[in-house]
Amino acid sequence: MRRPPDPPYWAVIFTSTRDERPGDGYEETAGRMFALAPEQPGFLGLDTARSDGFGITVCYWDSEEAIAGWKTQAEHATAQREGRARWYESFDLRVARVERAYGFDRRP
Amino acid sequence: MRRPPDPPYWAVIFTSTRDERPGDGYEETAGRMFALAPEQPGFLGLDTARSDGFGITVCYWDSEEAIAGWKTQAEHATAQREGRARWYESFDLRVARVERAYGFDRRP
Repeated sequence: MRRPPDPPYWAVIFTSTRDERPGDGYEETAGRMFALAPEQPGFLGLDTARSDGFGITVCYWDSEEAIAGWKTQAEHATAQREGRARWYESFDLRVARVERAYGFDRRP
Repeated sequence: MRRPPDPPYWAVIFTSTRDERPGDGYEETAGRMFALAPEQPGFLGLDTARSDGFGITVCYWDSEEAIAGWKTQAEHATAQREGRARWYESFDLRVARVERAYGFDRRP
């Protein structure tokens, strides 16, 4: 991921558990959301990883208004309903204000 | 993970890339850190996932003092040095204040 600018900015931390069932449409919708989010105003970046049915996605935004805009984006709202109805066993969503950040990169 | 109490609390978001090299000691040290962190004062919980050499670990704490305590814990400080010297290609660490949270659980 390209690095967001210096803090402060916002992070939405989404953790989820699901039973992986190939063909249930999850992967296609997740991929579509990862393509759509960067088109939203205020998007700064996205990190995602998944191990054994447990996933973490962190999305970075420049404001709380940007988070609200993405939450109500039409295709995303549909995906959220499908997530509750079909895909997720459980999830947690946390909205956090990033106060400081630092990085390390071995490459020159 | 058991859920932390209601916000506010703190999240440390650690994302990393590394070349997976079995036998380099990373897995043992990571496992040891996951066992040690919950013994620290102020620890609230930990989520971790890894895909294709990219990992996200989010650790939740009750205060900034708790984060500082974990950062300087002796074994953890040694692990951090090893991480820079040997294991990580790159990493980003973000300290964020969780302002609100909600969850969903299909199980009764």
